[in-house]
Amino acid sequence: MKIVQTDFSISTKKRNQLIDITSKVGLSVSQSGITDGDVIVYCSHTTAAITINENADPSVIHDILLTLEEVIPHHRPGYQHYEGNSDAHCKSSLLGCSEQILIRDKSLQLGTWQGIFFCEFDGPRSRKVFVQVRGE
Amino acid sequence: MKIVQTDFSISTKKRNQLIDITSKVGLSVSQSGITDGDVIVYCSHTTAAITINENADPSVIHDILLTLEEVIPHHRPGYQHYEGNSDAHCKSSLLGCSEQILIRDKSLQLGTWQGIFFCEFDGPRSRKVFVQVRGE
Amino acid sequence: MKIVQTDFSISTKKRNQLIDITSKVGLSVSQSGITDGDVIVYCSHTTAAITINENADPSVIHDILLTLEEVIPHHRPGYQHYEGNSDAHCKSSLLGCSEQILIRDKSLQLGTWQGIFFCEFDGPRSRKVFVQVRGE
Repeated sequence: MKIVQTDFSISTKKRNQLIDITSKVGLSVSQSGITDGDVIVYCSHTTAAITINENADPSVIHDILLTLEEVIPHHRPGYQHYEGNSDAHCKSSLLGCSEQILIRDKSLQLGTWQGIFFCEFDGPRSRKVFVQVRGE
Repeated sequence: MKIVQTDFSISTKKRNQLIDITSKVGLSVSQSGITDGDVIVYCSHTTAAITINENADPSVIHDILLTLEEVIPHHRPGYQHYEGNSDAHCKSSLLGCSEQILIRDKSLQLGTWQGIFFCEFDGPRSRKVFVQVRGE
Repeated sequence: MKIVQTDFSISTKKRNQLIDITSKVGLSVSQSGITDGDVIVYCSHTTAAITINENADPSVIHDILLTLEEVIPHHRPGYQHYEGNSDAHCKSSLLGCSEQILIRDKSLQLGTWQGIFFCEFDGPRSRKVFVQVRGE
């Protein structure tokens, strides 16, 4: 088995923002030389996440962010964390800090409408994403 | 390392439905000839998901669907996506489009009460699930 | 590829509790002899979960538990599951029963503030966690 590790950085612009990183992950896969296997996309932060959802119509992302903000508002009576970003920590755990995508025939095996997103919940910040491509 | 990729299709019957696919995944594992490793179960759609939960008492699934529908109702003021299924996209990201289960002694290493479910949130539809078994 | 499987048990003390298991997982990684790869941390229960979040300030965990209890209260009209723990099943699926962390240079490649948590939602109980370290 071959293991290829790559990292990349990303600058977010808003407090809550989903950024399409599909092409960055796809580049790691094509440069790895791996034909069959998988890729792990891992967010190394506790107020951000990785998710897979539709990247065709940008209104889908708008509606996901709207839902998250209404279900988990910025402020909630009883929050104790002094940084004031407890909502971002909650969203991070709910969406999860990593995704795993299969590789077949040297390509990301995503569904027709699927894209990979970095989810910022406490921006703007500079963020780091770990990518590990594994296979044969 | 051996990598065995299989796909299967599934027809859902309702808008919101959890379907037990444990035996389908188990069959992919037993047919792979792999003794130790893991299996990735991946949903290639953006209005559906994969989750692991109890498959003994069907009322657990009823209660999970009820909770999701009440926390993320079908319609929400402010939604912009023209297809009217933004709730399904949100549920997909919250539950996640894949699960990974360990393989030990040629079998799925699930807990006593755990089953693997395909989660339909915008059915009825015909859906596709990717399965990759990896190991030795 | 080398695959090393280890399990450990954990005793929870409260109905809702997040317990830092980073050092336990780190020990499995260091004892595996694997330099590059990944580790899967898998909860074999349907009323518990695994998540990654901040383990520096304990108020973050307090605030995550508070949010989950308010968004998914213990009792909800319409629940049918006779055990009265449907909220715990929902939280389990929302946070997910496993996490995957990369290994680089024989160490867990976590972000600066990230820790790995076992999430109890129906304790106190005795629980089992599966750990699989894979790589070279």
